[in-house]
Order: sequence, then C-alpha cells, then structure tokens
Amino acid sequence: MMRLLIFHGNLSYKATEPVKISVREDAEEGEWETFENVLTVFCAIEASDEGRLTEIVEKAANELHTVADRVKVKDIVLYPHAHIFPRKLGGPKFAVQMLQALSEELDKRGYHVTRTPFGWYKAFKLECFGHPLSESGRSID
Amino acid sequence: MMRLLIFHGNLSYKATEPVKISVREDAEEGEWETFENVLTVFCAIEASDEGRLTEIVEKAANELHTVADRVKVKDIVLYPHAHIFPRKLGGPKFAVQMLQALSEELDKRGYHVTRTPFGWYKAFKLECFGHPLSESGRSID
Repeated sequence: MMRLLIFHGNLSYKATEPVKISVREDAEEGEWETFENVLTVFCAIEASDEGRLTEIVEKAANELHTVADRVKVKDIVLYPHAHIFPRKLGGPKFAVQMLQALSEELDKRGYHVTRTPFGWYKAFKLECFGHPLSESGRSID
Repeated sequence: MMRLLIFHGNLSYKATEPVKISVREDAEEGEWETFENVLTVFCAIEASDEGRLTEIVEKAANELHTVADRVKVKDIVLYPHAHIFPRKLGGPKFAVQMLQALSEELDKRGYHVTRTPFGWYKAFKLECFGHPLSESGRSID
C-alpha cells in the first residue's frame, strides 16, 4: 500500500543532513528550493508494494491526476516521507524506483514533477491554501 | 487507534470555512494565529477509540511527552486532521472529547497546549526544522 498525503499550496525545502540509510540521492545540502501553487505529496512506499510497481504507479498517478485536475495545478512535488503511517516501509532502493516511476508516469500525463531527494533529513515550509480540496490522503493498494 | 503526525517547528493557521459536520467549535474565521518553536500534532481519532478515552489519552500523552522532552519544547498544538490515514474516523462529538481530554492531560503534565478548532477547513503554514527528531508519527492503540 502506497500512502499519499496531499496538500495544495506552496512549498520550500532544504536538505539538512543525510539519513543513515543505504540509498541517498544527490542533494544541494542547505539550499532552499521553493515551489508555488503545487501539489506537495508526502509519499510512503510499503514492503507489500514490491513486485507491484507498475500497478501501484498507475493507480497512484490516476489519483494524483484527479486531485490535480480538480484544483487546476500542473506542478507536483513528490516528497518521500517515512512517518505517514506505512504498515511496514519498503526497502529504500525499491522506494526510489517507485518514486522515479511515478514521476515519469505523471510527466507523461503532462505534469511538471519534482522529486525531493531520498535519504536526507529535510527542513520544509509548507503552506496549505485551506480550501476544501487542499488536503487529502490516498492509500493506493 | 489514534494517529499522531508530529512536527517540531513553527505553525500559523487560520480557519477558512466551516466543514459540513455536526460539531463545530468556535473559531475566529480568517484570523491568522502563529506559534513558534512548538510541536504541531495532526491528530485523527478512530471509531475504534470510542469507549477507550482514558486509556488512549494516557498513551498519547506519554508519547507526546517523550517527543517534546527530546526536542525540549513545552508548547503543543493539537490540530485535528481527518486525512492522516485513519481506518475509520470516530464520530465528531467523540473526537472533540478526546482532543479536549488529551489537552487537559498534557496541561497537567506542564505543557502549554492549544487546540485548533474542530469542524473548520483551515489554511496553514507549517515550518519543520529538519533535524532528525523534527518529524515523527505515532499510532496509539
């Protein structure tokens, strides 16, 4: 089950320090990056998703498309987040594959997608606009 | 099971519009309120928590005390959040009772606690400091 916690608004983040984990993507440590009028999507990938990449990615892209279409946004930030209640986290290598595949699928559908780096603690400033569709959660299974 | 998604940092929020629900607390609609150096705790109360208020509140307070103590914070904002993956949301009247009881229990333990109003859509600006203990999740059962 992939967890997606979705906010419509603005986001700034910076990588603060590496997580002690076997997979770490490149990051511009300490540099703030800012996005305006985007969907920020906290993502957790579960161990049970392994072997189901194509199916989960397709379903997740469908759900994100539905939300993005409703709020008329074309920019999506995929933000790996280990704490949004996965039952058992997937392995880091698989999680990065899944996030990469989801990014590519959304790109094919016409979205501009950014992934924040996996394997880093990050500071963030998240602004949520507060309209009824500006917060939602999806469990993809 | 009570879900707690916890961030160490700063928070501003304002109530934007009422949710169509049977319980709505008083709110200063449209007025930003700001908190610095706090634990922001998104909380979801499940139907399965009904009848277990005292037990769940005690356990939740223990967990929040542990986190607050580690990051040396005495201010806690309890922020009801329906989307952090409850299996089945509890009734609104019970959820408010639970949040009120948790607030009182934390107050007894020496914390300064604020509850954001239940039954409102809210805009927020959440800043998370980004150190290793600045984000965590707890499922209280």
